[in-house]
Amino acid sequence: MIQYPSKLIEEAVEAFAQLPGVGRRTALRYVLHLLKQDPALVKRFGETLSRFRDELKHCTRCHNVSDTDICSICSNPRRDATLVCVVEDVRDVMAIENTQQFNGLYHVLGGIISPMDGIGPNDLHIDSLVERVASGETQEVIMALSTTMEGDTTNFFIYKKLGVYPIRMTTIARGVAIGDEIEYADEITLGRSILNRVPYERSISVR
Amino acid sequence: MIQYPSKLIEEAVEAFAQLPGVGRRTALRYVLHLLKQDPALVKRFGETLSRFRDELKHCTRCHNVSDTDICSICSNPRRDATLVCVVEDVRDVMAIENTQQFNGLYHVLGGIISPMDGIGPNDLHIDSLVERVASGETQEVIMALSTTMEGDTTNFFIYKKLGVYPIRMTTIARGVAIGDEIEYADEITLGRSILNRVPYERSISVR
Repeated sequence: MIQYPSKLIEEAVEAFAQLPGVGRRTALRYVLHLLKQDPALVKRFGETLSRFRDELKHCTRCHNVSDTDICSICSNPRRDATLVCVVEDVRDVMAIENTQQFNGLYHVLGGIISPMDGIGPNDLHIDSLVERVASGETQEVIMALSTTMEGDTTNFFIYKKLGVYPIRMTTIARGVAIGDEIEYADEITLGRSILNRVPYERSISVR
Repeated sequence: MIQYPSKLIEEAVEAFAQLPGVGRRTALRYVLHLLKQDPALVKRFGETLSRFRDELKHCTRCHNVSDTDICSICSNPRRDATLVCVVEDVRDVMAIENTQQFNGLYHVLGGIISPMDGIGPNDLHIDSLVERVASGETQEVIMALSTTMEGDTTNFFIYKKLGVYPIRMTTIARGVAIGDEIEYADEITLGRSILNRVPYERSISVR
């Protein structure tokens, strides 16, 4: 048990130590760093945190984090509203947006089905996805969940739910990453990349 | 440049990214983690930060961080006020306190002399150390600075300043760490540990 010279320091250390991957030692480093900063800057840091959790909204349509009721992606008229990409969380939206290869909309589930963690279908935004599809605008749903058992379970559950609607359901391509050596690729990935091979012309257009 | 789905998220990420060793990726991980937490908890985190930099004091005697004008170490009557250990910053105080081997007081310089970083003797709490010694209570000053060029310079500067007072000046022992293999110790440390050898009885009492 570390002895802190001040109750305030101890509180700040405990606060930082809640963050993922941050122990008390790292938390203390952060706190002592802030101690050397301009008080106004640290105050603003604190205020940013106090505010952001209260003021941050989730898009009522796709459940992505947003400053407004409908997020900037959903409200962009130049995006293709017939295409919906289903992802686990905000990070995935950001990763796909960064590729600049996708011009449709998203649907953020807020997690994946995981009985081990007590997360069932009702804890996720699956009903609202079904409603979106039922309302008619959607023509294709692209599943972009991780290839874990939980991801596969969630894929299957959604596949069953959406099966009754006249839409295409696709999943993102899995295969050997661009730049990776074939000989070091794992068997499952390599096997899948052979099964799901694409015409040569398409393989060069994405680069 | 990462695109953030929300201005509030971006601000929070930028705030965390100021911390030492935290890039935007890690900062985003922290922010998304907080997003899943109870809003009241996150609000308190923010308030803790806003408060701590404003309310935290430095002990007027030893300059350690403190909740009060005189810190809990300086105001403890059971500690030996004739012994003053000079350290660079709060972290060193905490490290030495954790050993439970030191019962004197501290003097926190707030840094070490480093012309490269523009830190001169006047930026440190050296004058107040001289005053403390001049006031008469101190009998021994233990230097516990790092053995870098900057540490040695600071040691020497303080040694010169305090040389006129009738006190003992010591430095903490340097040597092969307990548990370390002799054959892998660096030459300078090993050389110093031979020169500064201690009677056998004393070597076992500290464990």
